[in-house]
Amino acid sequence: MAEFLTPQSEDFSKWYNEIVLKADLADYSPVRGCMVIKPYGYTLWERIRDELDLRFKETGHVNAYFPLLIPMSFLEKESEHVKGFSPELAVVTHGGGRELDEPLVVRPTSETIIGHMYSKWIQSYRDLPLLINQWANVVRWEMRTRLFLRTTEFLWQEGHTAHTTEEEAIEETLRMLGVYTDFCVKEAAIPVIPGRKSESEKFAGAIASYTIEAMMKDGKALQSGTSHFLGQNFAKAFDIQYLDEKNEQQLAWTTSWGVSTRMVGAVVMTHGDDQGLVLPPHLAPIQVVIVPIWRKNKGREAVVEAAKRIKERLSKLVRVKLDDREGFSPGWKYNDWEMRGVPLRVEIGPRDIAKQNVMVARRDIPGRDGKMLIPMSEIEGRIPAMLETVQDAIYQKAKDFRDSNIRDVETYDELKEAIQTGFARAWWAGDREDEDRVKNETKATVRCIPDEQPGGSGTCVYTGKPATEVAIFAKAY
Amino acid sequence: MAEFLTPQSEDFSKWYNEIVLKADLADYSPVRGCMVIKPYGYTLWERIRDELDLRFKETGHVNAYFPLLIPMSFLEKESEHVKGFSPELAVVTHGGGRELDEPLVVRPTSETIIGHMYSKWIQSYRDLPLLINQWANVVRWEMRTRLFLRTTEFLWQEGHTAHTTEEEAIEETLRMLGVYTDFCVKEAAIPVIPGRKSESEKFAGAIASYTIEAMMKDGKALQSGTSHFLGQNFAKAFDIQYLDEKNEQQLAWTTSWGVSTRMVGAVVMTHGDDQGLVLPPHLAPIQVVIVPIWRKNKGREAVVEAAKRIKERLSKLVRVKLDDREGFSPGWKYNDWEMRGVPLRVEIGPRDIAKQNVMVARRDIPGRDGKMLIPMSEIEGRIPAMLETVQDAIYQKAKDFRDSNIRDVETYDELKEAIQTGFARAWWAGDREDEDRVKNETKATVRCIPDEQPGGSGTCVYTGKPATEVAIFAKAY
Repeated sequence: MAEFLTPQSEDFSKWYNEIVLKADLADYSPVRGCMVIKPYGYTLWERIRDELDLRFKETGHVNAYFPLLIPMSFLEKESEHVKGFSPELAVVTHGGGRELDEPLVVRPTSETIIGHMYSKWIQSYRDLPLLINQWANVVRWEMRTRLFLRTTEFLWQEGHTAHTTEEEAIEETLRMLGVYTDFCVKEAAIPVIPGRKSESEKFAGAIASYTIEAMMKDGKALQSGTSHFLGQNFAKAFDIQYLDEKNEQQLAWTTSWGVSTRMVGAVVMTHGDDQGLVLPPHLAPIQVVIVPIWRKNKGREAVVEAAKRIKERLSKLVRVKLDDREGFSPGWKYNDWEMRGVPLRVEIGPRDIAKQNVMVARRDIPGRDGKMLIPMSEIEGRIPAMLETVQDAIYQKAKDFRDSNIRDVETYDELKEAIQTGFARAWWAGDREDEDRVKNETKATVRCIPDEQPGGSGTCVYTGKPATEVAIFAKAY
Repeated sequence: MAEFLTPQSEDFSKWYNEIVLKADLADYSPVRGCMVIKPYGYTLWERIRDELDLRFKETGHVNAYFPLLIPMSFLEKESEHVKGFSPELAVVTHGGGRELDEPLVVRPTSETIIGHMYSKWIQSYRDLPLLINQWANVVRWEMRTRLFLRTTEFLWQEGHTAHTTEEEAIEETLRMLGVYTDFCVKEAAIPVIPGRKSESEKFAGAIASYTIEAMMKDGKALQSGTSHFLGQNFAKAFDIQYLDEKNEQQLAWTTSWGVSTRMVGAVVMTHGDDQGLVLPPHLAPIQVVIVPIWRKNKGREAVVEAAKRIKERLSKLVRVKLDDREGFSPGWKYNDWEMRGVPLRVEIGPRDIAKQNVMVARRDIPGRDGKMLIPMSEIEGRIPAMLETVQDAIYQKAKDFRDSNIRDVETYDELKEAIQTGFARAWWAGDREDEDRVKNETKATVRCIPDEQPGGSGTCVYTGKPATEVAIFAKAY
């Protein structure tokens, strides 16, 4: 398989497109810009969804479902919002064989329709906080699309909450950024930089947007999740009011936050290598693949029997698959499962059975170094532990790569150089226009003002003005 | 609460609309015919989804995701299909600020787009069977809508499979009807009649459609799930071909099958009573609610402490909620949770603590008869068992009601009478036109030709011709 894959160093972008197709994660569809998520890719998304959903519920959120179609007039109620989303809308003009009186928009995001419902549901402070999440599809008309990274239709979750105070809403915004960070680090094994979006990059209609930024293997940034403090902008537009304890009408404070199928792309580009995918064990649809080895049907039955027993024992503990297909050599199967990123491979042949051993190979360490002989009696104890070892190892590897590709720069020239291979961190005091100029001149954008700040002050890398914050610059997906 | 609910006997339809709103299952939306599924209703749907999904995976299916938007020309490739769905389409004519060259349809169902992809994915007999399911939203423009029962947008799952032989495809069609039946009986506690749809009721583009029909408490039928044998109709339209073992090109045989958020309506109308919802324990978002009892804050602390310990102990076994809200009387809480259909209520007051007992009340048996004092030490053993008892009891109750409202009729007059209060079962040899006439004259339709047949032959209730099958007639949702 590997020989059919363009090496990452040759053309990372080509490598990405090839592996997404070859590993059966997704396929192009006949509808411009839309993708088909194939079963292997969808199972990965189900794992992402389940892990996030668990965390949402643990932090007091419940799921609900709001309509796909939104009256155009709703979007127009929040001026920044409609300005931001108008160019990307898909519009339904006909329904049931007739032209509609008012066109309906296929939701690009749901602040407006949810705001409308919240104004109906929220009466008193006792109804707050209202903490709802929605798993849904959204449509944003995109000119240049890439599987998972930028598609006209994508799947996501969007949380929408309403609160009595500004402080509580800001706390919620940051709590969910923390939930996303925790998910990325612990489950996706992706080190991320949490921070605040700059003015020109924030969500249309938000007071402040927060983001987690990840570094892909080509040094480019991928925005992997966002959380928005909406202030009272949507509460004003949709009249979300409540009676406080003194029986006075107050406007609510709202937030919204989302993670999408983009996350699949983040997993692919953070861990993958020239042999294909490298999936984090916590999210891998298949964590362990068992490949029985036999020669020209000699001893096939005994080996497959032993492999089945191992599968049975492991299936209570891990997501395991037995590959007993005929007509494919063990070596072909090794390559195939490596390409699909399965974290551990268990090999078992007649000699292993005789010695009551199995060979376990790690996907993340190629060749002999990643192989280990373990006694068959110990598989229940050792295999789950090895999966945790792999999970930690690929996180550490990604973090080391990321850290060694962030440069603290002091001059604009240094910045231009740093963003060729990674992130640049620099003092920043520019405004919206400065950001635009940097973008036009370097193709890099302010990814975020990271939470982690050095303290003190310095000189803005672009304007030369005194600055109190550093920003992360990078080219981005 | 109960006094605000119209009695079922007075106006069943009004009762339904009221309870769906009052129990916070769903709400009307500002978009014509679309509903908002509120958290309590959505959690019920999540339980339905999880139980079905488990069964799909156990029968070898995997999930995937296909585009929401389908080119209009795809629908036109299968003539019956486009005829059936044209009047119900929502059409996107503009995207990204421009008029589209070809209008896109918001999927009313996905046979066409999936057929297109299958023709690309399927090359040889080794690729078959292809067993894929999709969880998605669909849009069908409806003139008269009812929450959950008939909405312009609804959530559902649609399975789409392709096979090498006709026999295997028919087997799959019937297997999935069996899966639906099993789910209804075991999880939703709904007795259903599996059978074949008549010519005029079958899916647009199918060779044969199969259905499960449930009887609601007003005697009307609700089609609760369908499974279609599509023959080679879609394989021809979308060129789904494979190379067989002799290296010859063959057309595949396909099926599709679906269950939707309608199922929530089925649960409501099968089990609900004048006090509100009665939810089957297997699907109930909350299976047990604990209501601590105190008098004017006297002993409140001790009672709430004891209630918390019970909650802790039960939460490993069942979905439990503690209602320790202040400012609401125990009686008010009882009514509230009865209205929401929670299967078991645990009451605990100072006297119960002294005697180390708790009172457990069953939602399905009103008053004293449904109450039972159980020792606090036995709750882990007794409560899960009581939930199973309730599950069985409400199934039996629904089945008894259903069976006592099916009448075997011999004359058309008897049929007309029977369908006023339930189902009529009669010998049937009519054609499409006869069906239309019966519908116009009685408002009843052939719900299905049930799997269970008496054998032998009889005289068609409408045409007087010799008949070899009985059919079920009913008014339907």
